[in-house]
Amino acid sequence: MVIIMKPNGTQEQVDRVVERVKTVGLDVHLSVGEQCTLIGVIGDRTLLGETPLEAMPGVDRTAPITAPYKLSSRDFRQEDTVITANGVEIGGAEVVVMAGPCAVESTEQIIQIAKIVKDAGAKFLRGGAFKPRTGPYSFQGLGEKGLKMLAEAKAETGLGIITEVMTPTDVKLVAEYSDILQLGARNMQNFFLLKEVGAAGKPVMLKRGLSATIEEWLLAAEYILAGGNSNVMLCERGIRTFETHTRNTLDLNAVPAVKALSHLPVVVDPSHGTGLIHLVAPMSKAAVAAGADGLLIEVHHDPEHSLTGDSKQSLSPNQFAQLMGELKPLVAAIGREL
Amino acid sequence: MVIIMKPNGTQEQVDRVVERVKTVGLDVHLSVGEQCTLIGVIGDRTLLGETPLEAMPGVDRTAPITAPYKLSSRDFRQEDTVITANGVEIGGAEVVVMAGPCAVESTEQIIQIAKIVKDAGAKFLRGGAFKPRTGPYSFQGLGEKGLKMLAEAKAETGLGIITEVMTPTDVKLVAEYSDILQLGARNMQNFFLLKEVGAAGKPVMLKRGLSATIEEWLLAAEYILAGGNSNVMLCERGIRTFETHTRNTLDLNAVPAVKALSHLPVVVDPSHGTGLIHLVAPMSKAAVAAGADGLLIEVHHDPEHSLTGDSKQSLSPNQFAQLMGELKPLVAAIGREL
Amino acid sequence: MVIIMKPNGTQEQVDRVVERVKTVGLDVHLSVGEQCTLIGVIGDRTLLGETPLEAMPGVDRTAPITAPYKLSSRDFRQEDTVITANGVEIGGAEVVVMAGPCAVESTEQIIQIAKIVKDAGAKFLRGGAFKPRTGPYSFQGLGEKGLKMLAEAKAETGLGIITEVMTPTDVKLVAEYSDILQLGARNMQNFFLLKEVGAAGKPVMLKRGLSATIEEWLLAAEYILAGGNSNVMLCERGIRTFETHTRNTLDLNAVPAVKALSHLPVVVDPSHGTGLIHLVAPMSKAAVAAGADGLLIEVHHDPEHSLTGDSKQSLSPNQFAQLMGELKPLVAAIGREL
Amino acid sequence: MVIIMKPNGTQEQVDRVVERVKTVGLDVHLSVGEQCTLIGVIGDRTLLGETPLEAMPGVDRTAPITAPYKLSSRDFRQEDTVITANGVEIGGAEVVVMAGPCAVESTEQIIQIAKIVKDAGAKFLRGGAFKPRTGPYSFQGLGEKGLKMLAEAKAETGLGIITEVMTPTDVKLVAEYSDILQLGARNMQNFFLLKEVGAAGKPVMLKRGLSATIEEWLLAAEYILAGGNSNVMLCERGIRTFETHTRNTLDLNAVPAVKALSHLPVVVDPSHGTGLIHLVAPMSKAAVAAGADGLLIEVHHDPEHSLTGDSKQSLSPNQFAQLMGELKPLVAAIGREL
Repeated sequence: MVIIMKPNGTQEQVDRVVERVKTVGLDVHLSVGEQCTLIGVIGDRTLLGETPLEAMPGVDRTAPITAPYKLSSRDFRQEDTVITANGVEIGGAEVVVMAGPCAVESTEQIIQIAKIVKDAGAKFLRGGAFKPRTGPYSFQGLGEKGLKMLAEAKAETGLGIITEVMTPTDVKLVAEYSDILQLGARNMQNFFLLKEVGAAGKPVMLKRGLSATIEEWLLAAEYILAGGNSNVMLCERGIRTFETHTRNTLDLNAVPAVKALSHLPVVVDPSHGTGLIHLVAPMSKAAVAAGADGLLIEVHHDPEHSLTGDSKQSLSPNQFAQLMGELKPLVAAIGREL
Repeated sequence: MVIIMKPNGTQEQVDRVVERVKTVGLDVHLSVGEQCTLIGVIGDRTLLGETPLEAMPGVDRTAPITAPYKLSSRDFRQEDTVITANGVEIGGAEVVVMAGPCAVESTEQIIQIAKIVKDAGAKFLRGGAFKPRTGPYSFQGLGEKGLKMLAEAKAETGLGIITEVMTPTDVKLVAEYSDILQLGARNMQNFFLLKEVGAAGKPVMLKRGLSATIEEWLLAAEYILAGGNSNVMLCERGIRTFETHTRNTLDLNAVPAVKALSHLPVVVDPSHGTGLIHLVAPMSKAAVAAGADGLLIEVHHDPEHSLTGDSKQSLSPNQFAQLMGELKPLVAAIGREL
Repeated sequence: MVIIMKPNGTQEQVDRVVERVKTVGLDVHLSVGEQCTLIGVIGDRTLLGETPLEAMPGVDRTAPITAPYKLSSRDFRQEDTVITANGVEIGGAEVVVMAGPCAVESTEQIIQIAKIVKDAGAKFLRGGAFKPRTGPYSFQGLGEKGLKMLAEAKAETGLGIITEVMTPTDVKLVAEYSDILQLGARNMQNFFLLKEVGAAGKPVMLKRGLSATIEEWLLAAEYILAGGNSNVMLCERGIRTFETHTRNTLDLNAVPAVKALSHLPVVVDPSHGTGLIHLVAPMSKAAVAAGADGLLIEVHHDPEHSLTGDSKQSLSPNQFAQLMGELKPLVAAIGREL
Repeated sequence: MVIIMKPNGTQEQVDRVVERVKTVGLDVHLSVGEQCTLIGVIGDRTLLGETPLEAMPGVDRTAPITAPYKLSSRDFRQEDTVITANGVEIGGAEVVVMAGPCAVESTEQIIQIAKIVKDAGAKFLRGGAFKPRTGPYSFQGLGEKGLKMLAEAKAETGLGIITEVMTPTDVKLVAEYSDILQLGARNMQNFFLLKEVGAAGKPVMLKRGLSATIEEWLLAAEYILAGGNSNVMLCERGIRTFETHTRNTLDLNAVPAVKALSHLPVVVDPSHGTGLIHLVAPMSKAAVAAGADGLLIEVHHDPEHSLTGDSKQSLSPNQFAQLMGELKPLVAAIGREL
């Protein structure tokens, strides 16, 4: 960390800051410039905790040198993390496709879709039993009943299950029925939930918050890793910008950016990320080309009769099969498998 | 709601949509234009639930005519909602100031600050016992111990208490010790928490999410109102934009905008909203001039030795007293009280 | 400037950077930390020009210590700049109101509105002769004819004229007819235009770009100041965010923020900033309370028959007169004049 | 267009609006709902011009049904536009790569880089002679001298030239020396410049503004098309969001979105779009997979000694050659050529 002192500060102010830093066992280097004095803090800055240096007289601001997350950083672990769930590796050579409906609606519906996406090459079945909905008057999901339907679909097809958990008290319940616990964008900074899944010992998919910076996203992952659960994959699902043509702005830059900063696998959700059916296929291909380790795609066998309005972004079985066919040569061209 | 059909659609497609709408008991008006057909839906559109009209063949998109929230809308209730907490009215003639530290640190600290802010004219003491922190290595608050310290400060000064609750299972506990339950920006769409405070029967302050639209904010309030709790005040605390000079962009437009759309009181938090001490006073005045019903301001008696880095945005006791003095003539000029 | 070297860099890389910095006559201070080496550059960093230090091996990034603008900074000039145009001081004790229609439509229209706004207390008449329009099929303004109409309105009322200039070759023409040259948001970074008005010797109002940071805005002002024209006022007119309820997000934080960073006067345009008639009055008051030196407000005597769609955000003569009446006690309460 | 009347409006208000619409020769369909009346406008809405319907009593708002651009829309022209410049087709089967330095610095530099990028497979040489710079103290380009150097590089290598024009009076000059006129992001809404290049009869590359919506971007293209120049390609180069890790957020969603809305070719600039060298290759691949017709990439033979700080995002010759090699199988996999 560098502490930047104000232009017309006094020597006494510098001395007090230096003393404060030394109190916690750190050393400093002073750079006395024409415009201001810089105090370089040497050593592990976490020792400073939240010492409010910026509230001390004469301090203009502090500039961090190192990232505030550790366990999730590439510096901490050089090699890619590979997560195994239901026997499938995520973060390895394979690009893993997870597909299914927005919400679990009935046993028939979920089994039918499970078969469809499995035939087309998906490895995991997605489907919401607990649904975070913007308004209270929308369908909130089938809850535990929905989880049981997912279990039936797994029994029938062998597909792994990924489904969302929304609140700490449900973590154990959802973990019983799923292979990957999904944390939604709205819950990326639900810190009690992060701690709970950190203790759950199940693979977790952490979706990026709508307005979360990459650093905040990795700090949220850090909560889970610090809780003892190292099986965290990240999911880019679109950020909120001024553009209104797409529902969100799927930020593919985040894929190579996160893979440089962190060892964790990155999955992309083009369905929520764009909100427009005709963008799902091109953005799926782009995600894979950018280096994504997996795709999370909404598929519905009968979008017109689904229970959630989100189905307008769901691919039909044919559209999904066609996309999987088009992904194959692309994945091969970049030296991966599907 | 207007359903806009695609340009080259067929009569059959129009017929199917009309039939679908009529199934739920609604009527339609057709406008057959040169470019496309419009289907106006007549009656209460909530009857359509989430019928996925946009997934039907030939439908281009749907355009809502009415707001998706009800209980929180000005149409539902014309007169301003006035909330009474600890004997103080919020949403009436008085501009209510709530002040205190970012976090409760000790009994001495919180009582000392409580006395300072009371003397300067504040009516509520704010202070976090449960702290939502971006990273897992930051001070997470004193929890229940902190709540008890707040209670001591209330006993000592008579000030009402406002403090944050972060997770559903803590609602009862926090409600015991506080007069107003604060829901933080990161929890604006923590729907289980919204439902729980909806059932708690205590006044609630709902902070706007960092990237929440005004409509989403009112829909979050709707969860609480629909749960039977009508004592909801909204708090603008800054949104996330591209501007990095300020920590957030305090969106004062939201004050008159929300007051036109809704009957709920609106409070403004210029401390988190700007993140810069020297902006707190001018933006407090601007908030009041824009029509805010209250202010939520961070004050610390010794920012340099506080336990959270946020203290860099805390006013000193002198700065707070000066601001209160400056607010007085301004509040009088707009015909309100302080 | 601080140059932050990469963690595992070599001494040779540090040496090369130091040598490069010394080449231009600057000195350095080294801070050799456990994690990385910091090179503090001592002296006027403009001597480095655009030396691409970040492209040198071993350099992680550079962190500026001082602002990249000079003439517009408060450090360069401590006292507030006061600009005199048509005998009226902007940036002094008075809050100066500039009002008028979106576009000049006819001699009758502009004179009629000029009289109305003068009677209510405005000191400048605004009105576009050259109109920047998003699409080519919209009314593009009356051009020079419109300028002449503005001159007639000035002759009739004595009001100063502020009107927009859109392209370098029109600067002389517009300067003939106006007291203040307005540069629109879309032209904030039209660098040829900035240079031209820098040479024009007329007061300039520089509107903030829709997505311009405060730093970029001050750098744009720097172009004009560096061109020899020190009569620059800044105008906050709303930035682009994710919020769609308001046309733009009027960023009042920018008012006290700019006044701390710079000595230039700041004017606020609540009409374009919000795009909603019912927000113009509350946000005008808020702007004044935040410290604005002036207001730019759209007024039309007959919005329903105006030639631009923007008229939906224009105040009627009555609404404008009422606002001026409400501003008076507010302005007095903060110790200024109207 | 649908005109949405306010809930408690009167019949007289509806009648006046209908009359107003009929005045210009359009017809209407009324939908009288329980909540409000909708007035569907039938026929070419451009006949309404900017009739300020929203300023009429009783009108709540208007909702457009059709896009405000025409010549640039896919409805106007079904087949893809293919532009030929210097004998190369853009918008056809080939993915066209344009590469070169941020700025032209010297004859030696530009010829050396031209040879490097040509050898690696680029078809156009990019390089700025006129440079839009955020601050007045940065290198502003060599101007006409730089154009002549580009011409020499073309003579030497046969590569087409693409370079930026910043102001209307320079259009003829720049058109003499270049095969494609580039309009930069800051000039996307420089309407005088758009009109001038509309009349220039040279292919144009229109970069998306930093905060321009897709609709505004197509409306800017419409200015050029309406001026009689149909050879317009669009270039996505990153939008401004809250994310600060990347310089901009390269919005690849815009590629398939624009190709659905419009017949114009789309090029992607991952260098400015990300601002980070290590993201250029993955985002180039992603752009191609998303359907981009071309790439605009910064390459410098000696980034460390370049004259602009932007060189930190420039690929070295080796990095560029490697990227071109990696693109080949990818382009083949999607059935295109490089």
